[in-house]
Amino acid sequence: MTPEEFRRAGHRLVDFIADYRAQASRFPVMARTAPGEVRAQLPAAPPCDPEPFDAVLADLERIVLPGLSHWQHPRFFGYFPANSLLSSVLGDLASTGLGVLGLSWQASPALTEVEEVATDWVRQMVDLSPAWSGVIQDTASTSTLVALLCARERATDFSLTRGSLVAEKSPLVVYTSAHSHSSVSKAALLAGFGRDNVRTVDHDAAYAMRPEALEAAVQRDVEEGRKPCAVVATVGTTTSTALDPLEPIAAIAARHHVWMHVDAALAGSAMILPECRWMWQGVEGADSLVLNVHKWLGVSFDCALYYVRSPEHLVRVMSTNPSYLQTAADAVVKNLRDWGLPLGRRFRALKLWFAIRAEGVAGLQARLRRDLANAQWLAGEIAKTANWRVLAPVPLQTLCIRHEPEGLSGPDLDRHTLAWADRINRGGQAYLTPAILDDRWMVRVSIGALPTEREHVEALWRVLRKEAEMGSGY
Amino acid sequence: MTPEEFRRAGHRLVDFIADYRAQASRFPVMARTAPGEVRAQLPAAPPCDPEPFDAVLADLERIVLPGLSHWQHPRFFGYFPANSLLSSVLGDLASTGLGVLGLSWQASPALTEVEEVATDWVRQMVDLSPAWSGVIQDTASTSTLVALLCARERATDFSLTRGSLVAEKSPLVVYTSAHSHSSVSKAALLAGFGRDNVRTVDHDAAYAMRPEALEAAVQRDVEEGRKPCAVVATVGTTTSTALDPLEPIAAIAARHHVWMHVDAALAGSAMILPECRWMWQGVEGADSLVLNVHKWLGVSFDCALYYVRSPEHLVRVMSTNPSYLQTAADAVVKNLRDWGLPLGRRFRALKLWFAIRAEGVAGLQARLRRDLANAQWLAGEIAKTANWRVLAPVPLQTLCIRHEPEGLSGPDLDRHTLAWADRINRGGQAYLTPAILDDRWMVRVSIGALPTEREHVEALWRVLRKEAEMGSGY
Repeated sequence: MTPEEFRRAGHRLVDFIADYRAQASRFPVMARTAPGEVRAQLPAAPPCDPEPFDAVLADLERIVLPGLSHWQHPRFFGYFPANSLLSSVLGDLASTGLGVLGLSWQASPALTEVEEVATDWVRQMVDLSPAWSGVIQDTASTSTLVALLCARERATDFSLTRGSLVAEKSPLVVYTSAHSHSSVSKAALLAGFGRDNVRTVDHDAAYAMRPEALEAAVQRDVEEGRKPCAVVATVGTTTSTALDPLEPIAAIAARHHVWMHVDAALAGSAMILPECRWMWQGVEGADSLVLNVHKWLGVSFDCALYYVRSPEHLVRVMSTNPSYLQTAADAVVKNLRDWGLPLGRRFRALKLWFAIRAEGVAGLQARLRRDLANAQWLAGEIAKTANWRVLAPVPLQTLCIRHEPEGLSGPDLDRHTLAWADRINRGGQAYLTPAILDDRWMVRVSIGALPTEREHVEALWRVLRKEAEMGSGY
Repeated sequence: MTPEEFRRAGHRLVDFIADYRAQASRFPVMARTAPGEVRAQLPAAPPCDPEPFDAVLADLERIVLPGLSHWQHPRFFGYFPANSLLSSVLGDLASTGLGVLGLSWQASPALTEVEEVATDWVRQMVDLSPAWSGVIQDTASTSTLVALLCARERATDFSLTRGSLVAEKSPLVVYTSAHSHSSVSKAALLAGFGRDNVRTVDHDAAYAMRPEALEAAVQRDVEEGRKPCAVVATVGTTTSTALDPLEPIAAIAARHHVWMHVDAALAGSAMILPECRWMWQGVEGADSLVLNVHKWLGVSFDCALYYVRSPEHLVRVMSTNPSYLQTAADAVVKNLRDWGLPLGRRFRALKLWFAIRAEGVAGLQARLRRDLANAQWLAGEIAKTANWRVLAPVPLQTLCIRHEPEGLSGPDLDRHTLAWADRINRGGQAYLTPAILDDRWMVRVSIGALPTEREHVEALWRVLRKEAEMGSGY
């Protein structure tokens, strides 16, 4: 495809995307496709000769679109809001269009320096102190893995430079709560801690980690000859946006020289609002922190911001310096390959930089406040309606709700919950993702897709009542 | 930014990219910017109010472009060719524009199924057997880390489900050559093997791993009570595109039940050419394989294809299954979150799918053959010119070259080499990345940027002679 062919095809694709975003509400929110249905429509073998762009675009419309669950639909209430801002889409297009790579600072200086600036802008927006240095990772999963690897190496005085973990005498222990994200235990297992050494610290009635329980667990491990290594605290858990209390956790971590990693993947975006910052009071006591601006803030995926207080330690764990990557500038620049797992690096900062500039901090704040108000409105409606419950505090934009008809409990209640959620999802009017809380299924309502206004939340509430109450005969 | 604002701004950005690609040759290839120069031109704080898209685009032109080294320039001969196809840029734009995420199959079925189809197309294109299953990872670095984690868990019968590495009795050993990529030892250290347990297996005069040396190293470790765990063989090393002999390495791996991972990050693209497939003869004996279609093949970064023979093992090491991600379809679909490190997943397959369809297999083959011929032409010119040497075999598109004036050797020769390479890079006429081979600096010429035709290689050869021969007084 020549630049001129790209120009023509690109204009058509931009129009296609503009039309899709403007009209996303015409689709059923959750894909109705059956397993294998998309695959069956595609040729099993690649084409030998070039196909016209028209054919590709036609298949995008005819085969791909019906196979999507539409995250940018105004009635998408599943998982978490993400990946939405069209200004960020353009930033990412600029990145792929320029086609540069950042293997080192020299390999494209602006790629590194715009990333430094944009991650520092976000640092200021969420009111973190200048003691933090940021870098873009792909996801919170990867960031947490990086954090636990750094914790492992700090606790073992760089065992990787010697015989590594097999040569260690004491098992290293990681602490987290049952409500932390699945990626925390995955990272701990992959980093080599072992399931026996991942402690699930007790939580309170609001699903937040209990600092006393953490202290007790750490002391028990010390007494029994194990080495407390890292604690992962969550600001805004996945299931219910619970808030682990960072300040007391940081005090315990400091006392026992334990690495503290904060997973603020979802809730971190809300810290651009001064009225939300009480939620991560104590964050300055952490060693590392992840904040996914590709979630609620709306930057195009993947854009997880990973902040550390000691970049020197991060670089020492992650660095490589083969001759083919050395340049004369190395002594005075950042080589971001040494700040994470991958060597290759897209110009990912552009999608963040474009988004902040095109929306403005005030614009981003206004949208998040809209979503917080919508969540409070829905919580209020549910709380005052018979047989409906909001099951957890709603500090942010996620509600955990259940319709509890009289006489229904246990597995029967689970069946009821999953049935009405499934009816709504299959009906195409909204998309909701059920989850388990206190051993019972409930339904998460995650508000904050870009086009979701009050009217869509009102429409959701009507659908919820209709499908849950009719289905149960109440 | 509304869909209509996106439409207008998107058209302008498409034109900007088309113009940039058509006129990339007007820039000095390597950025002339000084450290901190880009950063100094950007505001230290984020804007409160939205800025017009014009202002962002103007800064892209005025601040970012001069701060780039231009990977899509016809005289870019640094690192490796990458990230080039405009058809792929459009596929990536479609992905960010649709704004979906693949947390599970259900979260957007087409995202998973197009990835299954596109990775299988590439499998066929490089003539791997149907025993391989593919998934897209970000980079070869990450893929190799995943491979070594899978090897570790196979060798320890899933130590991660117990007390993990600290509880193991025998150190686990990884084998590779001094010419493998820096990401191999990085992955081994991060996966917890420890530097003491990473063996550098001897290589031959063509920089390829010697199977007899591998066999001897494995036997020595077994005798001394260590456990051979994994071998990483490279098809097309970074420095000189050397080819580790896969067939005898696979035989040794099979005999000792050692995991064999093949790093074909660069050279894998060449396997779409039947005449190149001798280079990885024996690949079917490997357990895992990485092939970066974002390199020479030209798909937009990041698109590393990771193939495994046992997806069940991969999933067992990587899987998580929290309630909030469970769906009714899970038993009959692939959930690609369990095929790698991150949970979140872009619709990365689109950029691969668009590229293959828009270019056609024959089109991709023709371009790679052009680059192979250009490399052979340059190798021929150098070989017949006094005081110039091609230092390693040229099976692909990378040449290792040196100008060796009579009487110059040792550190003096290094100074001469680095000086003329630096003159060329600073002069802006071409971009070359020097590297060390046999303890001496030489210059890599990596051919294959999308717009690089014979005329540009001829121009490079004139520049090489001028700068090296004049600079040395010869």
